[in-house]
Amino acid sequence: QWGKGKPWTNHLSTPEILSETETGMSRLSLSDADKKVRDWFIDTTRSLGCVVKVDAMGNIFAIRPGKISGHATDIASAPTYAGSHLDTQPAGGRYDGILGITAGVEMLRVLEENSVETAFDVGLVNWTNEEGARFPISMVSSGVWAGEIPLHQAHELREVGGKGATMKEELERIGYLGTLPASYEANPMAAHFELHIEQGPILEASKQRIGVVCGVQAYRWYTIEVTGREAHTGTTPFSARADALLAAARMISHSHEIASNHSALASSGILSLSPGSVNTIPGKVKFSLDIRAPEDGTLDTIETQLQQSFREIASRDMTKGLDLSVSWRKDSDSPATHFHQDCITIVREAGEAVTGDKRLVRDMVSGAGHDSVYASRRCPTSMIFVPSRDGVSHHPEEYTSPEDCAIGAEVLMQSVLRYDRL
Amino acid sequence: QWGKGKPWTNHLSTPEILSETETGMSRLSLSDADKKVRDWFIDTTRSLGCVVKVDAMGNIFAIRPGKISGHATDIASAPTYAGSHLDTQPAGGRYDGILGITAGVEMLRVLEENSVETAFDVGLVNWTNEEGARFPISMVSSGVWAGEIPLHQAHELREVGGKGATMKEELERIGYLGTLPASYEANPMAAHFELHIEQGPILEASKQRIGVVCGVQAYRWYTIEVTGREAHTGTTPFSARADALLAAARMISHSHEIASNHSALASSGILSLSPGSVNTIPGKVKFSLDIRAPEDGTLDTIETQLQQSFREIASRDMTKGLDLSVSWRKDSDSPATHFHQDCITIVREAGEAVTGDKRLVRDMVSGAGHDSVYASRRCPTSMIFVPSRDGVSHHPEEYTSPEDCAIGAEVLMQSVLRYDRL
Ligand SMILES: NC(=O)NCCC(=O)O
Ligand SMILES: NC(=O)NCCC(=O)O
Repeated sequence: QWGKGKPWTNHLSTPEILSETETGMSRLSLSDADKKVRDWFIDTTRSLGCVVKVDAMGNIFAIRPGKISGHATDIASAPTYAGSHLDTQPAGGRYDGILGITAGVEMLRVLEENSVETAFDVGLVNWTNEEGARFPISMVSSGVWAGEIPLHQAHELREVGGKGATMKEELERIGYLGTLPASYEANPMAAHFELHIEQGPILEASKQRIGVVCGVQAYRWYTIEVTGREAHTGTTPFSARADALLAAARMISHSHEIASNHSALASSGILSLSPGSVNTIPGKVKFSLDIRAPEDGTLDTIETQLQQSFREIASRDMTKGLDLSVSWRKDSDSPATHFHQDCITIVREAGEAVTGDKRLVRDMVSGAGHDSVYASRRCPTSMIFVPSRDGVSHHPEEYTSPEDCAIGAEVLMQSVLRYDRL
Repeated sequence: QWGKGKPWTNHLSTPEILSETETGMSRLSLSDADKKVRDWFIDTTRSLGCVVKVDAMGNIFAIRPGKISGHATDIASAPTYAGSHLDTQPAGGRYDGILGITAGVEMLRVLEENSVETAFDVGLVNWTNEEGARFPISMVSSGVWAGEIPLHQAHELREVGGKGATMKEELERIGYLGTLPASYEANPMAAHFELHIEQGPILEASKQRIGVVCGVQAYRWYTIEVTGREAHTGTTPFSARADALLAAARMISHSHEIASNHSALASSGILSLSPGSVNTIPGKVKFSLDIRAPEDGTLDTIETQLQQSFREIASRDMTKGLDLSVSWRKDSDSPATHFHQDCITIVREAGEAVTGDKRLVRDMVSGAGHDSVYASRRCPTSMIFVPSRDGVSHHPEEYTSPEDCAIGAEVLMQSVLRYDRL
């Protein structure tokens, strides 16, 4: 079919307009590129003295032994982790997720090169398919670890489009289907700290350097399917049509309005239709809907309103032609998250210590989901944000300055060490 | 990418709800299925005493010699043709185009079995890629024959999506790149009569049997490309977005309104986007736009209005965020067509003779384009319509009763013979 939204490759098609720092990344979860970076992750952390474990979701845990090395399943003496992800959007940047992992590797290197002895084990975890871009549930593997998503559901999750491979098949194919159970009980963490780019405009606008992330807004993903009737574009009067694309267009435009009214967000990132011919009215359209708001209740309200208004848009009254049908499928649901006070305090103190200026540090709520959302259900958690130029993310021009990356990495290490000493 | 509007296969996926007469057809132009039916066409017409010629667009001309067999390039003694097409929509029916060809084969059979001697040659032509569904210019090969579309442009036309094979490559692959020039000068027709299903609701509603087609409404096809900026759906406030899908949705919905205001038609049958991820705002959307009206002037007006309003929809004022850019490409343009008075009269007389009742015959304007549009530029032409149940076409449930097919075939044969005697 026509221009089926082909993902970008590793090389941008428009290098001439990009400076050296403006280079994108396309490393979909469990792709060959992902296998390569995973192999690098394991080699590197092993060379820094870590023991490496891979669980049934392909999550990779690199653990550097402390003075008291915990028993595998003992939470009291479990490792304090830094963590994030190495997968990207189809046309993503070089910072989202990747910064948190490279900063974690840096932390391990600094500890090793300076022969630092921590009280307990210290670890670094690379979570699988955080983005939800290839397998359409974001943070699915930290979700399994936290016991919030059933293992079999995640294993059977098919790549976007519904026709390709499952996560389990791809884990096997690239050799990352581990034997360790993906579970906070079998493989506990004492705490989880995540350094991440803000992906929004706030720190840059306020000229601040470190965001202390106190929580994450709620979001839900749906697939909406609109069914009308194929018909000839030249011979079918509007009054005899059930045009699934026209209805979907009205729904997308309406969801934007409703979200605006609630100071919330609504976005559609995927749309496909059939049969796909210039002179045939589409009989079927599927599109994704992503709604977000700080409060779960706001999402309840928006969902209810949209269900009602999509029904209206599909009805004879509104089409002035034939009825269409609409179906909703909820693909994922991430309630509003509030991080742990101890971790928030530690990040704030570390941020103030590293920047040397309270005014450069601010509390924030994350607009995006992160593996820390699920980690926080099972262990004390917080996150560190650094500025994103122009607030741009999920785009090859995503950029954070080397200084901000370095400050963030320093705050990450200090947070882990402060927690270790707690 | 997700559910990329997969074309139907020859077998419907929902046979249980379909009666025997409600069966679709998927025979995209120059596919393997098309090769098969072309081979059948040639074998059958040869066995009925025809000489068969294939031109550089794969148009197939089967000619049954008359008393005076013309010289190849002499218009005065050229064959009188019946013609239509054997290609279908991806999810098409069994009548659109196919009826005109099978009725033409029936005509050749009746003439042969009854040893009818015509004054001049009588022919049947199967035009290539009438639908424009695979190679996105409808009637492209009759257009080349008429000298209205350059041969090289048609040969280089790529299948929908822009990445697949060209027409020339596919003609070669299936062995139908003929040596005869695709040209009315090298290969003239004395007249062209086309039997076709109405594809609309008029004959059925008025309980009439035969439409005498006096002309075809104007239509134009465009590809609209909207360019915004990829961004994160969770962290990018509406005020910082350039959401290409939201803008495209508003354009599609607006084009419907503008067309309504002019009692015209506007439809979008194809839409593709990139990058195609639930949590990335699409940076680029392409969609097709098909506008139709009885008068060329109405299309001029609609085109001007839409160019203006699409610009507005893409502008900061309307997005309440960032500017987007919009580009238009005109893919095809079929001006309003008026058929030849002689042929119109012949069809009307034949219709009245076959039905035996003037009231069952009416003059009509076609909503859809047909190869007769281009044929009419180079020889006297008219068409015969028979009723479509519920006005449905470009859909597997397309249906015309056997009686109506038979009446139509009889009118086709009589029209050709009346013209031959003229
Ligand atoms: N940080 C990030 O992009 N996470 C993906 C999940 C989401 O869409 O919020
Ligand atoms: N008859 C028919 O479907 N022709 C295709 C060209 C058009 O879309 O009108």
